[in-house]
Amino acid sequence: MYTLLKQSGHARRGEFKTVHGTVQTPAFMNVGTVAAIKGAVSSYDLVDLRTQVELCNTYHLHLRPGDKLIHELGGLHKFMGWERPILTDSGGFQVFSLAGLRKIREEGVTFASHIDGRKIFMGPEESMQIQSNLASTIAMAFDECIKLPAEYSYVKPSCDRTYRWLVRCKAEMARLNALPDRNNPHQMLFGINQGGTYEDLRIEHAKKIAALDLDGYAVGGLAVGEPKEEMYHILSVVDEYLPQDKPRYLMGVGTPGNIIEGVWRGIDLFDCVMPSRNARHGHLFTWEGIRNINNQKYERDTLPIDPQCDCPTCRRHSRAYIRHLFRAGEKLGQRLAVMHNLYFYNTLMEKIRTALEEGTFEAFRAQYVDLLDTRI
Amino acid sequence: MYTLLKQSGHARRGEFKTVHGTVQTPAFMNVGTVAAIKGAVSSYDLVDLRTQVELCNTYHLHLRPGDKLIHELGGLHKFMGWERPILTDSGGFQVFSLAGLRKIREEGVTFASHIDGRKIFMGPEESMQIQSNLASTIAMAFDECIKLPAEYSYVKPSCDRTYRWLVRCKAEMARLNALPDRNNPHQMLFGINQGGTYEDLRIEHAKKIAALDLDGYAVGGLAVGEPKEEMYHILSVVDEYLPQDKPRYLMGVGTPGNIIEGVWRGIDLFDCVMPSRNARHGHLFTWEGIRNINNQKYERDTLPIDPQCDCPTCRRHSRAYIRHLFRAGEKLGQRLAVMHNLYFYNTLMEKIRTALEEGTFEAFRAQYVDLLDTRI
Repeated sequence: MYTLLKQSGHARRGEFKTVHGTVQTPAFMNVGTVAAIKGAVSSYDLVDLRTQVELCNTYHLHLRPGDKLIHELGGLHKFMGWERPILTDSGGFQVFSLAGLRKIREEGVTFASHIDGRKIFMGPEESMQIQSNLASTIAMAFDECIKLPAEYSYVKPSCDRTYRWLVRCKAEMARLNALPDRNNPHQMLFGINQGGTYEDLRIEHAKKIAALDLDGYAVGGLAVGEPKEEMYHILSVVDEYLPQDKPRYLMGVGTPGNIIEGVWRGIDLFDCVMPSRNARHGHLFTWEGIRNINNQKYERDTLPIDPQCDCPTCRRHSRAYIRHLFRAGEKLGQRLAVMHNLYFYNTLMEKIRTALEEGTFEAFRAQYVDLLDTRI
Repeated sequence: MYTLLKQSGHARRGEFKTVHGTVQTPAFMNVGTVAAIKGAVSSYDLVDLRTQVELCNTYHLHLRPGDKLIHELGGLHKFMGWERPILTDSGGFQVFSLAGLRKIREEGVTFASHIDGRKIFMGPEESMQIQSNLASTIAMAFDECIKLPAEYSYVKPSCDRTYRWLVRCKAEMARLNALPDRNNPHQMLFGINQGGTYEDLRIEHAKKIAALDLDGYAVGGLAVGEPKEEMYHILSVVDEYLPQDKPRYLMGVGTPGNIIEGVWRGIDLFDCVMPSRNARHGHLFTWEGIRNINNQKYERDTLPIDPQCDCPTCRRHSRAYIRHLFRAGEKLGQRLAVMHNLYFYNTLMEKIRTALEEGTFEAFRAQYVDLLDTRI
């Protein structure tokens, strides 16, 4: 259940209650693809990093170790040792981007596993069944994530089908939650707004999915190649058609600047692999901009990555040491870097929430929206 | 300074005082090759694993990031965030095994870097200078580690040269410790007994190096391919010729069974990459024997790696989860496994110390010497 605590323009400071605890929003969800954070970071480390929600990938977990096994072992929380909320995606994004897609039909999608080429069918019911087995806190609807740019004539029937899939998702989730053997019988379902960059399709779709009274709503199909101005425009367009009393989630976004702009347009939840992926390449977020730790200028630098940061990495290790680990190919370097970047994102969200509470969000936005994406 | 607290046969329960704290012996030193434990484990993690001494590799650190840089940054303790004792090897072992060895002369050794093929000269003075720059607690003498089997006619002159190198090491270390800019002006020097598997050479060499009154003594050139009975025999042979009032270190050894047998023959210190290397392949030490976590039988196993273990991994994670991480290629699996195995070795040494204190070491040896090396 979502409670709006304070509003500043379109930006929302809220609380989102779940059976696994309350999420203070706006919040960034940390991506634990296959029930582990890439870079040798565990769910227990995430507690130290003040992560509120962990996101896991349905497609990956369905293939390995298998959702039925996770169901048998008591669900994803128990499996990976994380007590706070978990959001699982629907698997759709990976099916459309990573797997060998064979065919989209009204029933669902046939594709080939990226691991062994095995042919798999996934439709709305299958996605809900897998997510129900995973027993995440929040399940995402099964949708088609359209690559941009896309023709109107492709996007419209795709959106219509995604809506029909959503109706089926809702019915299937209700059926599954009523089964006697569920590890989370209170699993929530979020719908996903689609429509490419076409205002009328976005609005029509948003209205239709809002009427289904789901637990939350995502804006999907953005940050897939379009200019960021188009993404921001669509967010502003759909804002008034998404229910005010439900959390809103911008999928797969983004840079610190993108997140600030998303919050400014009424978004509550974000997720992105950027902080961990960048970290694994030595690209580190700081309150002065983005630092490439591989740079020779850090060879003798005894300062922490960010002197303003109190993450486990910055409290203990120097730039010189972390640069050395990267150059020597030691995995510890990636771990320390990922921990720093995730902590940075979680701290960014804390600062945004504080700014919203104190009525200083406009000033915060002006100060940081470009600065944090600058390379220094 | 070494204090013998209790003796049981040849086995010794002791205390070894250093400027970086006191080591309770027998002890196992955890190998942090390039100032980091392989498997994304940091010096701070080692504190949680109850590690007493961290061992770093002179050869690797000389090449990258360079010992002069580490000297400038205040020494290895500061560089990697570890306050307890550090032992550095001499570089000799890597020069003779890993690098492209060019030539051994009285002055020292010319070899090619395994990173870029660069030609490098290292002799006793160079090794001491590098280790002094690293500012470890204990420096090891520069010696030739002879591959076994080896002819008497090769081993004898090699041992004689290793002795002459040791005399030069001692003089150079005294000179370096007196320099005004040292990060550890109290750096200790351990000599290394060589002699292959020839009793008379081992004894002659042990007597000569004992007379140099060094801070400690290692037995080197073992566990390099000979049957373990030969290694044990040599340990028994040299035992009476190594000073009783100095710590004794068996280099590069070994399995839990090897360690128990080493302690039984009067050894105080051990090091080996085995626990971390095995862990990275999913081979995990337990009090019931060695478990291969990749085995399918662990797919649904919700027990910890070792139900008797209270390491950070066993307190939190199941066999099923760790097996999943290994199969999915997640580095977190390696990290959790390395932490478990290092903790196991540190716990093994604790149990050995307790058994020595309580007079039950013979029973401990009988119970565990073979069991811990058994695959289950």
